[in-house]
Amino acid sequence: MSLLVVGSIAYDNIVTPRETASDLLGGSAVYFSLAASLFAPVRLVGAVGEDFDRSHARMLAARGVDTAGLEVVSGGKTFRWTGEYSEDMNQRRTLSVELNVLEGFQPRLPAGFRDSRAVFLANGPVVTQHSVLDQLAAAPDLVVADTMDLWIETERAELERLLRRIDGLVVNDSEALLLSGCHGLIEAGRRILAMGPGTLVVKKGEHGAILFRGDRVIPLPAYPTPVVVDPTGAGDSFAGAMMGSLAAAERIDEAAWKRAVAQGAVAASFTVESFGTARLGGVSAEEARRRFDEYCGFLRIE
Amino acid sequence: MSLLVVGSIAYDNIVTPRETASDLLGGSAVYFSLAASLFAPVRLVGAVGEDFDRSHARMLAARGVDTAGLEVVSGGKTFRWTGEYSEDMNQRRTLSVELNVLEGFQPRLPAGFRDSRAVFLANGPVVTQHSVLDQLAAAPDLVVADTMDLWIETERAELERLLRRIDGLVVNDSEALLLSGCHGLIEAGRRILAMGPGTLVVKKGEHGAILFRGDRVIPLPAYPTPVVVDPTGAGDSFAGAMMGSLAAAERIDEAAWKRAVAQGAVAASFTVESFGTARLGGVSAEEARRRFDEYCGFLRIE
Repeated sequence: MSLLVVGSIAYDNIVTPRETASDLLGGSAVYFSLAASLFAPVRLVGAVGEDFDRSHARMLAARGVDTAGLEVVSGGKTFRWTGEYSEDMNQRRTLSVELNVLEGFQPRLPAGFRDSRAVFLANGPVVTQHSVLDQLAAAPDLVVADTMDLWIETERAELERLLRRIDGLVVNDSEALLLSGCHGLIEAGRRILAMGPGTLVVKKGEHGAILFRGDRVIPLPAYPTPVVVDPTGAGDSFAGAMMGSLAAAERIDEAAWKRAVAQGAVAASFTVESFGTARLGGVSAEEARRRFDEYCGFLRIE
Repeated sequence: MSLLVVGSIAYDNIVTPRETASDLLGGSAVYFSLAASLFAPVRLVGAVGEDFDRSHARMLAARGVDTAGLEVVSGGKTFRWTGEYSEDMNQRRTLSVELNVLEGFQPRLPAGFRDSRAVFLANGPVVTQHSVLDQLAAAPDLVVADTMDLWIETERAELERLLRRIDGLVVNDSEALLLSGCHGLIEAGRRILAMGPGTLVVKKGEHGAILFRGDRVIPLPAYPTPVVVDPTGAGDSFAGAMMGSLAAAERIDEAAWKRAVAQGAVAASFTVESFGTARLGGVSAEEARRRFDEYCGFLRIE
């Protein structure tokens, strides 16, 4: 199933308790694409500036990512984000954001992308997410969106309208509580399903994720990687592997969603093992399969 | 395998954001015994005061708990604890403690308990935990202990000696970090295994547990119960079902430990569904088995 992602492309500066790194290739669409392309070809839509290193586009293309939707804004600068992680890596603080080419960016789908059957709307302004759906030629088989506290607080009405247009939502635990107004995650998940999407995945970082679908509430743990070097991009990698796995599935049922969430957990575990995309970008399909099999084995109780 | 638990018996006052309850039967040995007795007969050792309601002892006996080690201290009062939970139920604050008969309590094993093959040392002064092991006639097949921040900070040397005498340790996440001096749980778990016990289970409340055993690090989620009325006793119920499951196992290998941790997660999920022991005390072996099968089904990825 053709898989489209619309999201950000960034150069990140990252400060962790042990190390600092600058000008790392990042952004939701990049992490998503690297993880998703382990399972299915990916169509990427996003904007960069003239400072964007063309070797990064070639690297994505080599991974099976169609970069026809990569818009280079003339005279523009690529989005830049600087963040700092706490001692236990569980909290992060944004030190600076330069929106640059993302300021007022309106994604335009290339004609060849308009028949995409699976669509992922990475975190971004909700009106922009709507505009992507409006550009599709036909209703896709699967539309999943991400969002964040900023849009939950400032674009509530548009977000509620979006929830009725999508099949799945992926958010983290604090966003699920904020969106639902609940204190407990299980209650929050059910409340959000009632707002529209048939499936909800709540990411809990090192604690895994919970899949909500119909009456079913299925918790899955994180893969226990011993080394957490840089959590940046873990959530987007999770979403990428999840969507790639679903796009490659014969049928999108509960079993496929469970497999997809598990693949998401595995991809996220690779991402955090290095700064930026270094580890995820080097993972082979075979290596991902081995860790997935190990993960499923952990959970097989006899 | 005969299963011995030495721990506290309490009357608890519990304040949650939605409700308050007083004089609830509680204590580590009580929650442990109710959960463990779903799987194996239990031998209980603990002290109560003259105020202890005999119907509570009869209730335990009816569940297959041998109360020969229940010491009624003449002129004494039963241990009392009052605690308050935060809005999201994840934090708790002790409002008052009356040690009463636990002040200086030295457990004495009845002669018939000294051949116990599986032993659980619930949270308590480390020297008391040592004294229980000293009273056993022969080395048991399985000794597992719990502990807490107080003893990690004040009885460090005795605790390190205990870690070399036991097969397994069960602690929560913050205790594992404190005991190991690490910032991450995976690293913490490995550090603790190097201190002695062959197996470590780190409980993470609503986020499940991690089993450490040799080189293996196996995360298992919590059972996603929608209703959390009162988390008191969840950890002790977890330990009880885990030890009961191990005591009933043919062989204590990795598969048995995984099953045991899963049974722990299921028992804890019953406990939190009501105040005190009301829900756990009413669970039948059949009901526990059904929820366990459901839990294992959640984790089967195909």
